[in-house]
Amino acid sequence: MKKGERTRAAILAEAADLASSVGLHGLTVGSLAARAGMSKTGLIQHFGSKERLQVETLKSARDRFIATVVRPALATPRGIARIRALFDYWMKWVIAAAPVGGCIFVAASAELDDQPGTAREYLVDQHKQWLDVITETVRKAVETGDCRSDLDVEQFTFEFMGILLAFHQLERLMRNPQALARARTMFERLLADACRKPSDAPSAISERRP
Amino acid sequence: MKKGERTRAAILAEAADLASSVGLHGLTVGSLAARAGMSKTGLIQHFGSKERLQVETLKSARDRFIATVVRPALATPRGIARIRALFDYWMKWVIAAAPVGGCIFVAASAELDDQPGTAREYLVDQHKQWLDVITETVRKAVETGDCRSDLDVEQFTFEFMGILLAFHQLERLMRNPQALARARTMFERLLADACRKPSDAPSAISERRP
Repeated sequence: MKKGERTRAAILAEAADLASSVGLHGLTVGSLAARAGMSKTGLIQHFGSKERLQVETLKSARDRFIATVVRPALATPRGIARIRALFDYWMKWVIAAAPVGGCIFVAASAELDDQPGTAREYLVDQHKQWLDVITETVRKAVETGDCRSDLDVEQFTFEFMGILLAFHQLERLMRNPQALARARTMFERLLADACRKPSDAPSAISERRP
Repeated sequence: MKKGERTRAAILAEAADLASSVGLHGLTVGSLAARAGMSKTGLIQHFGSKERLQVETLKSARDRFIATVVRPALATPRGIARIRALFDYWMKWVIAAAPVGGCIFVAASAELDDQPGTAREYLVDQHKQWLDVITETVRKAVETGDCRSDLDVEQFTFEFMGILLAFHQLERLMRNPQALARARTMFERLLADACRKPSDAPSAISERRP
């Protein structure tokens, strides 16, 4: 990397930490300049507007997310092993980000959901790609025969996200030491359901014992 | 209500709408005064500090949440009916809040998780009470025999929260028209699992068909 690129990458890493903790709205030129030990003028030269700084911060976090979660997971064999890897690497990603505020995307998702603009559009696009990674991973597990052929893979993805979000809230907001165990239990149940034989289907509520 | 109380309640309703959309950090005296059609001085007389305004806004939203979700749900018969009511009223709460930005507590939870202070402490306490409402409702459904006696009720609560959070993200961030149907499917599966006979347990993955 050239010096300019190194500086830029260092600023964006600081920016991502700051955004995870205080939110993307907290990425002011002033607060970031102080944190990165630069002049405000220098920072403005690098990024221009606040919205551009937000988008660049999300992009830089995305690169790290791909390197830390997506790429290692996709390097594991197709099937259940890869679904497990997605779950495990995501958990590691959040736990590693604990000192600076957890997953920047979970924070940004609640922050930007009602804020129209380039940053929101970028985040939505990014999140869609992440959902596609999960869905494709599950679809491959159906192809390999690990998961049942009638599995609703998009429903699986929705429930997988439910685990991650419930974990993030119990861990980050509630600081509950059970959060990881709860998430693991929920994940194993989702996986068991995705892999069960049709005859193992839980009985409907109306058929339960009196 | 006296005039002073009415004014206060009206300001806090505006404040909750603003916080749902832009976040609690966006509750500045200036932005709120403009929205409520008051002078900044008048507003400061009502609430003092910004942190106090945040806490009062959460308290006011909590009162509405109890009136809209908790109380009607607790008025339904114990057992599965009450679990369903909690789910249905919560969904209505979010859908009704759609024009102003969704559930203020979901937004605040991601925003405040790394912001130590009175507002965070209040939110954590509030959230704990909400988790207790869910857990107690499920415990009663075990007592009535609707749910199985070996059910881990706190695990149920965790998974219930996962549904709400995944719904909120798919609906609010992704504007996905399938969000409600996905949440409903996930909820029915959770409920079916909570009510199944022990012999209906899904087979472990290692026992699945080759």
